[in-house]
Amino acid sequence: MEDESLQIRNKHVAMLIENHFDDEELRGALEVLRTAGATVEIVGPTAPTEYTGIEGMKVTSTLTARKVKAEDFDAIVIPGGWAPDRMRMQHLLVDLVRETAEQGKPVATICRGAQVLISAKVLKDRMVTCWPSIAIDVKNAGGLYVDRPVVVDGPLITSRKVDDVPEFTSAIIRALSQA
Amino acid sequence: MEDESLQIRNKHVAMLIENHFDDEELRGALEVLRTAGATVEIVGPTAPTEYTGIEGMKVTSTLTARKVKAEDFDAIVIPGGWAPDRMRMQHLLVDLVRETAEQGKPVATICRGAQVLISAKVLKDRMVTCWPSIAIDVKNAGGLYVDRPVVVDGPLITSRKVDDVPEFTSAIIRALSQA
Repeated sequence: MEDESLQIRNKHVAMLIENHFDDEELRGALEVLRTAGATVEIVGPTAPTEYTGIEGMKVTSTLTARKVKAEDFDAIVIPGGWAPDRMRMQHLLVDLVRETAEQGKPVATICRGAQVLISAKVLKDRMVTCWPSIAIDVKNAGGLYVDRPVVVDGPLITSRKVDDVPEFTSAIIRALSQA
Repeated sequence: MEDESLQIRNKHVAMLIENHFDDEELRGALEVLRTAGATVEIVGPTAPTEYTGIEGMKVTSTLTARKVKAEDFDAIVIPGGWAPDRMRMQHLLVDLVRETAEQGKPVATICRGAQVLISAKVLKDRMVTCWPSIAIDVKNAGGLYVDRPVVVDGPLITSRKVDDVPEFTSAIIRALSQA
């Protein structure tokens, strides 16, 4: 962990935000990535805007999707909850995800975050995991669904649920430190 | 409306329920169908159980999915909100939807209710509408997505959002009165 923390100290991560995110998934991923030394920007449809999690956690976006591009970040992280259902209707967020994946940089989703991968059309023939309710949507989008705590395939790093946060964040840090 | 109300007085409708349903969609559809004379049962994973809408409306299920079968009803109605994400993980509810559609009886969904149609695998080559966030999932499942207040194709009656409730319920009553 100490080695990895040194290696990702110069990395910039975009954590996407919308209302009704999963509080624990966002909090957990944010804490681990910041503790490991990464600079994490909170990217939302607008900024600075306060977004609210399902359980009431408040998070203020630091950058608007309108003013960022895939080149600005080394990785994207998408928390779960109901927020991905909202994110996938924001073309700027979906485009950012598609372009980041096309540039081969890590795009990490947990829970229903994979809904944004469906909308970005980056799932075809990729092995992925997600919250089980959307597994059929992931498969219909051409993804190869498996039920594991974390799956890494090309640029995609995917996890299922809040219990997976430790393995999810470890995989993100590993990918960033190898980049 | 008066004619229709007489014609659906002997009809039994199953309104599916789970937590985080869209309060206005459920309340609106329930009121119109009951006013029109239908007997509406609230069918949930368990019963009697109190389920809570996104805005706090409380609805108690009258029947459990375990004790009903498609033959018991003339139609199924699925409200939107986040509830369909939960319903589609309940095999008994998904099976009930599939069997009802296979029997050619109306299955009506509004908003994200179409997620249950995806899981029931009854969308192929059917013209349908839904909340826009899941339009891509509907298309990937073989459905022919269109953006209209209500779409009727075979057994499927689909609408997009709470504003469509009047046209949605009219289409359900029309289908029931013709059955």
